[in-house]
Amino acid sequence: MNMNIVLLSGGSGKRLWPLSNDIRSKQFIKIFRTGDGEYESMVQRVYRQIRSVDRDAAVTIATSKTQVSAIHNQLGNGAGICVEPCRRDTFPAIALVAAWLHDVKKVSEDEPVVICPVDPYVDEDYFQAVGELGRLAGEGSSNLVLMGIEPTYPSEKYGYVIPEDENKLSRVKTFKEKPDLEGAKKYISQGALWNGGVFAFRLGYLLKKAHELIKFSDYWDLYAGYENLTKISFDYAVVEKEPDIKVMRFSGKWKDLGTWNTLTEAMEEPAVGKVMMGDACENVHVVNELDVPVLCMGLKNAVVSASPEGILVSDKEQSSYIKPYVDSIDQQIMFAEKSWGSFRVIDIEDESMTIKVTLNTGCGMNYHSHERRNEVWTVVSGKGRAVVNGVEQPVKAGDVLRLPAGCRHKIIADSELKLIEVQMGKDISVHDKIKYPAVDQSMV
Amino acid sequence: MNMNIVLLSGGSGKRLWPLSNDIRSKQFIKIFRTGDGEYESMVQRVYRQIRSVDRDAAVTIATSKTQVSAIHNQLGNGAGICVEPCRRDTFPAIALVAAWLHDVKKVSEDEPVVICPVDPYVDEDYFQAVGELGRLAGEGSSNLVLMGIEPTYPSEKYGYVIPEDENKLSRVKTFKEKPDLEGAKKYISQGALWNGGVFAFRLGYLLKKAHELIKFSDYWDLYAGYENLTKISFDYAVVEKEPDIKVMRFSGKWKDLGTWNTLTEAMEEPAVGKVMMGDACENVHVVNELDVPVLCMGLKNAVVSASPEGILVSDKEQSSYIKPYVDSIDQQIMFAEKSWGSFRVIDIEDESMTIKVTLNTGCGMNYHSHERRNEVWTVVSGKGRAVVNGVEQPVKAGDVLRLPAGCRHKIIADSELKLIEVQMGKDISVHDKIKYPAVDQSMV
Repeated sequence: MNMNIVLLSGGSGKRLWPLSNDIRSKQFIKIFRTGDGEYESMVQRVYRQIRSVDRDAAVTIATSKTQVSAIHNQLGNGAGICVEPCRRDTFPAIALVAAWLHDVKKVSEDEPVVICPVDPYVDEDYFQAVGELGRLAGEGSSNLVLMGIEPTYPSEKYGYVIPEDENKLSRVKTFKEKPDLEGAKKYISQGALWNGGVFAFRLGYLLKKAHELIKFSDYWDLYAGYENLTKISFDYAVVEKEPDIKVMRFSGKWKDLGTWNTLTEAMEEPAVGKVMMGDACENVHVVNELDVPVLCMGLKNAVVSASPEGILVSDKEQSSYIKPYVDSIDQQIMFAEKSWGSFRVIDIEDESMTIKVTLNTGCGMNYHSHERRNEVWTVVSGKGRAVVNGVEQPVKAGDVLRLPAGCRHKIIADSELKLIEVQMGKDISVHDKIKYPAVDQSMV
Repeated sequence: MNMNIVLLSGGSGKRLWPLSNDIRSKQFIKIFRTGDGEYESMVQRVYRQIRSVDRDAAVTIATSKTQVSAIHNQLGNGAGICVEPCRRDTFPAIALVAAWLHDVKKVSEDEPVVICPVDPYVDEDYFQAVGELGRLAGEGSSNLVLMGIEPTYPSEKYGYVIPEDENKLSRVKTFKEKPDLEGAKKYISQGALWNGGVFAFRLGYLLKKAHELIKFSDYWDLYAGYENLTKISFDYAVVEKEPDIKVMRFSGKWKDLGTWNTLTEAMEEPAVGKVMMGDACENVHVVNELDVPVLCMGLKNAVVSASPEGILVSDKEQSSYIKPYVDSIDQQIMFAEKSWGSFRVIDIEDESMTIKVTLNTGCGMNYHSHERRNEVWTVVSGKGRAVVNGVEQPVKAGDVLRLPAGCRHKIIADSELKLIEVQMGKDISVHDKIKYPAVDQSMV
């Protein structure tokens, strides 16, 4: 049976500032050790685990436009990407990905689809359960099968599912929204499970639900009208209204790493990056993405994180109150992963900005121009080809290119290529960019 | 009576890392509020206070070569600078400055000289006392007059002076080296004062002492043989052996800001730079020299400091144990004040380094070349003149200059001028620099 796994990749990730920001969500932070000593992000970890459990599963990431570059950068081209034109909550997102699977990927209506969050911190047994959920849905066990996580404490953060019996697979008696502490205790005493946001169904079932609730002909039509859809959650629109629904219990490791406090609990080691930890530190975690050292002395129960965006120093418990502070920061994005590599802002002046650009081997940026700024590129390492106003030239470390406003330019890396870009002009903005569909005729 | 005040400016300042480093000593950190809302450093504060008390005093800074640029940058050209060729403790340093005053500045042997540390945190009454000390020495009250600070607690950090009586000016009965806590209590019960390192004498007295202990003819001879002098402190060589010595007691504010703990006590406000402090923070001080924000949440009794060199997060008490950690850091200097402005390293790669250079109006760097690296300058703001291989050209924001290895170059700022310098080559080092005494003939 073909297995379709859809990872919902959302969130702007302010809660993990300064590692996450408006364009880098928490799932892209490289903070987990892989077997071979490198670091990987949540999305890389989840994707690797899925591939390890079922190397043939068709994995699709449902996400917004802002994350496409980072996904390509971190996962390569192995996963399909279904891009939402804008955010409209989970029901429209799942309807869109269902239409995409059917109309673009030609997935049959009988095939099972499992919807998962992109950011659970789990072991491989979780993805074995995900596969099992898909098989149950594919076999028509019921219209919807969802995963119920056995609770480890009376949490106020999750919705609850109360099953009819204690079997591994049970019909659902009822759903409960996020309770208070007393409510959580009561539900657990009634055998409730956490709703982990994992749902399996046959593609045809979901398409039918989508057409019942949204007027559209096919994927392209749904995409075109997406902006006008009402925001509604999949739980509310479908799950809680479906009578033929079962829950499969899961008792393995499952952590939701939404705050610095929970994230640091999942870190295999107390420090990532250049960090010196004094002997008197207790229960301190540090993630340093800068090139200079962080020295911690005599701290207790604290998290420290430094990135090009800023520096957080927080008591672990207090770190859950971070959001209003981060909302108040009005700052240029200082770092971003792109499909072709990454950039980092290294200096800002009133009428100039200096950026370090790293292009991965074989990658090139879009062919583009700027209206209101001149740029100077100094290549500091690697080899490649620059195209300026339609003329290609080889470039290597030491070369300097002047790119006056209006000139069309791109660079393609033949080996990893790094350059320092100095932007000069009034009102420098990422929005001052005119893209061209391809390189000029002379280049074809 | 002419008054000569000599400020001894020493120290590598590891205890206030990351604000101080091998080339920026703690006295140059701009952390104190001036009356008009700007920040000033300890040396600026002390110099301003001296000028306010006695605008005619001749102030000399006795220091090492590495501090000359920072002193010019922070004090302009108002103070004399007597440069030690290397560090040889306080007696050789004071002998050298005495010879310099006599032979270079033609100060008469009858004039009083007062030696002060450059970094006490004091009010103006301290410098009134310094002036009084000088007058007493000038009048021949005794060969040596020193300042005794009335102790506020039994400190183990200072040497003690025991006066013969309780008068404002008393003969010295005896000196005591840094005691343990019990010793300190005992001395204080005997009326002891802290030895604050302030000494006054007539210039002739000190020159005589210098000639007794060191063989030299004049300042230039002493300078030439300085490296071969034995390290010995002024206290040991002179003060403790002098029978005709008095102490003048001082009861005003006097703080020694040698550690983060004491430094933060003197800060008028808890945060300097871009800082967000959560409500739950208590007794937290932050000094942030970076352009990105520091967010502190739920911290107690902590100091946080971020600079281009690194980031410190420490319990205040624990911060006094910082030195061995900082000693273990082996890192490129990331920021420096120069006589002509400042530079900051903004990117480091294996075979390139990118630096932001800021030249103050009217200033120019030395005319120089490099053997093993090419450089590219992109001017991002301001106007000036560049000299490349003897040819002067005007430069302004947007201009790009290529400076291949071997080419002689300098730049002079006609208004504040900022440029991005990309250095490229193997083994990039600050030592790869050949200076030329002046601009080529063609420039004269």
